[in-house]
Amino acid sequence: MSDCIFCKIANGEIPSHTVYEDEQFRVIMDVNPVSPGHMLILPKEHYQDLYELPEDTAAAAMQLAKRMAEAVKASLQPDGLNVMQNNGKVAGQTVMHYHLHVIPRYEGVGELAPWEGQSAAQEELRETAAKIQSQLG
Amino acid sequence: MSDCIFCKIANGEIPSHTVYEDEQFRVIMDVNPVSPGHMLILPKEHYQDLYELPEDTAAAAMQLAKRMAEAVKASLQPDGLNVMQNNGKVAGQTVMHYHLHVIPRYEGVGELAPWEGQSAAQEELRETAAKIQSQLG
Repeated sequence: MSDCIFCKIANGEIPSHTVYEDEQFRVIMDVNPVSPGHMLILPKEHYQDLYELPEDTAAAAMQLAKRMAEAVKASLQPDGLNVMQNNGKVAGQTVMHYHLHVIPRYEGVGELAPWEGQSAAQEELRETAAKIQSQLG
Repeated sequence: MSDCIFCKIANGEIPSHTVYEDEQFRVIMDVNPVSPGHMLILPKEHYQDLYELPEDTAAAAMQLAKRMAEAVKASLQPDGLNVMQNNGKVAGQTVMHYHLHVIPRYEGVGELAPWEGQSAAQEELRETAAKIQSQLG
């Protein structure tokens, strides 16, 4: 897409700190990292989100995330790592071009904020599971 | 692993609210959801984390996440969705059996906490990229 900044970065029209590149993807350093070593995996083709992304590209992105996780573990020795992918503004997506975050975590700095999960009623879980299941393709 | 609760759940020894099951995976409702429809994708085989997970299982997990995302979008109409995978305590992993979170997000309730990213120096990004790149297998 002509006005998409991640299309331009992925295709090399805008410079980036590139860690890896192949025909399908470019992996760059996030310029606003939540921790040292925070990377973004960008497909070169434009897909807005996981819903638009072809299944085989989703699979390849996760395989690449595993490779990047191994490289960042070997090079920066983080204490943990998140792989995260956000769809929609309410989920924290700020650029509307699919990207997969690889975020190393370090004790004391850059830890993940604690989860805010709350125990759910069994009946509620049962009903929700049934609703989702009914829409499985 | 005999003392792993997710092994027992994935293999049906402990009951769960199962949304989907095949030979390789079980998808369950998280009993401590961060939002309605929060699911976990569990491989039936025991792998501690992304580092232990075979590449093809990582790929299959992300393909399944896409299917689950589509089903939850159609059934619960969330405004957004996160796919997240935590490795290590410092990254929020509480059960040491690989699992992929599928977390629907809704405006006003259950939004993702804002990112805490900070602008990084170009030189720092360049050096970090080079370090990671040097360890790419």
